[in-house]
Amino acid sequence: MNEIAPFPSGIDPAVLAARLSDERAPDIVEALNEEAPEVAAAILLGLSQERAIEVLDQPELDSAADIIEMLPRDRVASFLSGMSADRITDIFREIEEPGRSDLRARLDAETRGAVDRLSTYGEETVGSLMTTEFVAVPGNWTVRQTLDHVRQVEKTRETIYAIFVLDPRTRALTKAVPLRRLITGQPEDNVLSVAPNRRPLAVSPTASREEAARLISKYDLLALPVIDAVGHLIGIVTVDDMIDAMVEKQTQDVQRFGGMEALPDPYMDIRFGTMIRKRAGWLCALFLGEMMTATAMQGFEGELEKAIVLTLFIPLIMSSGGNSGSQATSLLIRALALHEVRLRDWWRVALRELPTGLVLGTILGAIGIVRIVVWQKTGLYDYGMHWPLVAATVGAALVGIVTFGSLTGSMLPFLLQRLGFDPATASAPFVATLVDVTGLVIYFSVAMLILRGTLL
Amino acid sequence: MNEIAPFPSGIDPAVLAARLSDERAPDIVEALNEEAPEVAAAILLGLSQERAIEVLDQPELDSAADIIEMLPRDRVASFLSGMSADRITDIFREIEEPGRSDLRARLDAETRGAVDRLSTYGEETVGSLMTTEFVAVPGNWTVRQTLDHVRQVEKTRETIYAIFVLDPRTRALTKAVPLRRLITGQPEDNVLSVAPNRRPLAVSPTASREEAARLISKYDLLALPVIDAVGHLIGIVTVDDMIDAMVEKQTQDVQRFGGMEALPDPYMDIRFGTMIRKRAGWLCALFLGEMMTATAMQGFEGELEKAIVLTLFIPLIMSSGGNSGSQATSLLIRALALHEVRLRDWWRVALRELPTGLVLGTILGAIGIVRIVVWQKTGLYDYGMHWPLVAATVGAALVGIVTFGSLTGSMLPFLLQRLGFDPATASAPFVATLVDVTGLVIYFSVAMLILRGTLL
Repeated sequence: MNEIAPFPSGIDPAVLAARLSDERAPDIVEALNEEAPEVAAAILLGLSQERAIEVLDQPELDSAADIIEMLPRDRVASFLSGMSADRITDIFREIEEPGRSDLRARLDAETRGAVDRLSTYGEETVGSLMTTEFVAVPGNWTVRQTLDHVRQVEKTRETIYAIFVLDPRTRALTKAVPLRRLITGQPEDNVLSVAPNRRPLAVSPTASREEAARLISKYDLLALPVIDAVGHLIGIVTVDDMIDAMVEKQTQDVQRFGGMEALPDPYMDIRFGTMIRKRAGWLCALFLGEMMTATAMQGFEGELEKAIVLTLFIPLIMSSGGNSGSQATSLLIRALALHEVRLRDWWRVALRELPTGLVLGTILGAIGIVRIVVWQKTGLYDYGMHWPLVAATVGAALVGIVTFGSLTGSMLPFLLQRLGFDPATASAPFVATLVDVTGLVIYFSVAMLILRGTLL
Repeated sequence: MNEIAPFPSGIDPAVLAARLSDERAPDIVEALNEEAPEVAAAILLGLSQERAIEVLDQPELDSAADIIEMLPRDRVASFLSGMSADRITDIFREIEEPGRSDLRARLDAETRGAVDRLSTYGEETVGSLMTTEFVAVPGNWTVRQTLDHVRQVEKTRETIYAIFVLDPRTRALTKAVPLRRLITGQPEDNVLSVAPNRRPLAVSPTASREEAARLISKYDLLALPVIDAVGHLIGIVTVDDMIDAMVEKQTQDVQRFGGMEALPDPYMDIRFGTMIRKRAGWLCALFLGEMMTATAMQGFEGELEKAIVLTLFIPLIMSSGGNSGSQATSLLIRALALHEVRLRDWWRVALRELPTGLVLGTILGAIGIVRIVVWQKTGLYDYGMHWPLVAATVGAALVGIVTFGSLTGSMLPFLLQRLGFDPATASAPFVATLVDVTGLVIYFSVAMLILRGTLL
């Protein structure tokens, strides 16, 4: 392990550049992320051109757009010419006009064309993740010709471990040859002699990033080809870009499940105003939803006045509904993401969650009843003369609420997917809020059933 | 996209084997996962030996241990001899004695040694994820010798895209040469002529899987070497094994954050009893914790009787504390996992969450007050003659509770890490439970302060 520790800021950029020049690009990125964009720009200028390009090519560099805007225009052009088109596209997305058009004009014609094409794809699509720097050869080449070509272009390609073979006439993608197979081939044989006999897996540029991630992960691919409607190879998604996308998606999912909008930057880099905005939105929405509980309680005002003892268990009962719902939601979010269940399986899941919820509710209900009996019998608290009925109310309400929570929590991700949303937008607080109001209604309905004529 | 759809069960295994034999191994695995182990075993026997080994080598095959135990012993031996040692180790973990010892005896000496070594590592360590099938050459070989060796061993190595160069004398790991660089080298030059000038990154076999995942993802590695205390190369972690581990960890994290134990198998494959056990544990623990709310409410019995109006807002106020806590926990779980913040940064985070919580609480408090004023003024509900004081109580309590929730939620992942647990064991329901009891106490304390002499 020879990572470097982040160093203290406030040192001369030239000194920092000299100190960093021998480090690995991801470590330089980590150091630059600790600095203000103007300092980071100054450090970049102190590195060799090759290093600087390598650093700018890392998606982990936080304020690449700001840094680029601070560099002298002539240096920028030479940096951009060395960077990959997909990275330039990502950076351009964050640069305001007229800066973007100015920079675009400085690109060489080929890169400009690639960037223009890449920037037409939406942020969540495969198209926005793919690179156009792949190795493709016509199917009438020999192994030797292919290997010679690979050696020549090695430095300018994101990966050469998958070599794509095109139909010499139509230029459609016909095979993917792993480099490991290519080097074992006879030099004068046709390149197809080392190709697997299957057609390669491929995706459309408008497919979702998750779909690419799932295919790469399932089939252990190092690169997944992206083809257009007529089968022409227009790009590839490499495994390392996919991992970066996976890590980002995981962070988003956890933050969303925690009940907030996903943050665009690391925790410590988020401005106070952004942090409030990303959290206040959902918090207010949930608060407004939860206000229904106050309305529901107002509706049961009469019952509350007659049987204050019922209020004691409101938090306990409501939270149990939310907790069981949160469990079920987390299970189904992942099951849907991993294609373990499909949309059409919703009723199978409902048929599993119903008995599961009943059993879990019965367990909690039993504990709740025991608790009331123990407190009553040991004199810790007096739940009144009708305490056995109160205990029955709490127990029965728990069965109903936990069952309802499990069902609601498990169906919510299906509903979201059906409506075209990512099931992972379901959050624990959202499920809890959904379940809370109904939970109160269930509780008071059970109470009226059991306690009518005695307490109520 | 040429994945196959899962096909209906209940067909002759020989027919299924014939139909599957041309599919990709991951697709065969998916089909076998739909079948009972005895059917899957019969299908495997109908495939060619090479295909069968490829299928058994996939970690996604669900009941590999059961399947292997059902195969004729002589076939098992030849299957095992073709499988990778790390996969055999994983499968052996799930086979009971005496079956395991019997199978172990059938391994060739080299594989048996590798399996014995690999099985000494704990399940969460790099050692349990690594493979021993890597390519290593002494540092005095030429590029040509190395390439010849790579071609020879290609079929039996998990990856050949990273070639590890060892010190000819001490056999310690000195360099990692990517195959893409090797093929560009001059045949008669020393292999070190194409090596990067840096020492390779490496991990210890006892490091955590997350550490390996972080390094592979940060440095875009295809394989991460694992070295022992004296610097000898004992294995590698490949990017595709790491992705599988990442996906598994992500599922565990989401399930844990949802407030349950992580499930070992896909949702639909979990037996009912296991499902109840994995969910009931945490649900009961949270229920017992939440019982403190009943105790707290009993303590405020007098206040409740005097001011029933206070009970109307209990669910609203408590859930707001839980929601803000859940947000903060989800943020810090990911920030710690990605090393965006370190343990020592806890006070920095606390200093951010304090004002964040205050602002968020003030926003919710303001909404709460507006709600009471509107309902009162429009005659939707009558909160009594002291309604302005009730509104003030609700508003002030929300500020306190949301601030407390944000602080508690953000500090919990630090506390867990400090105690040696994975911060991702913190869950939304757990945070909510922590915050609920204190939330009630804050609410009633604020009420006593503001309402003493009027309602209380």
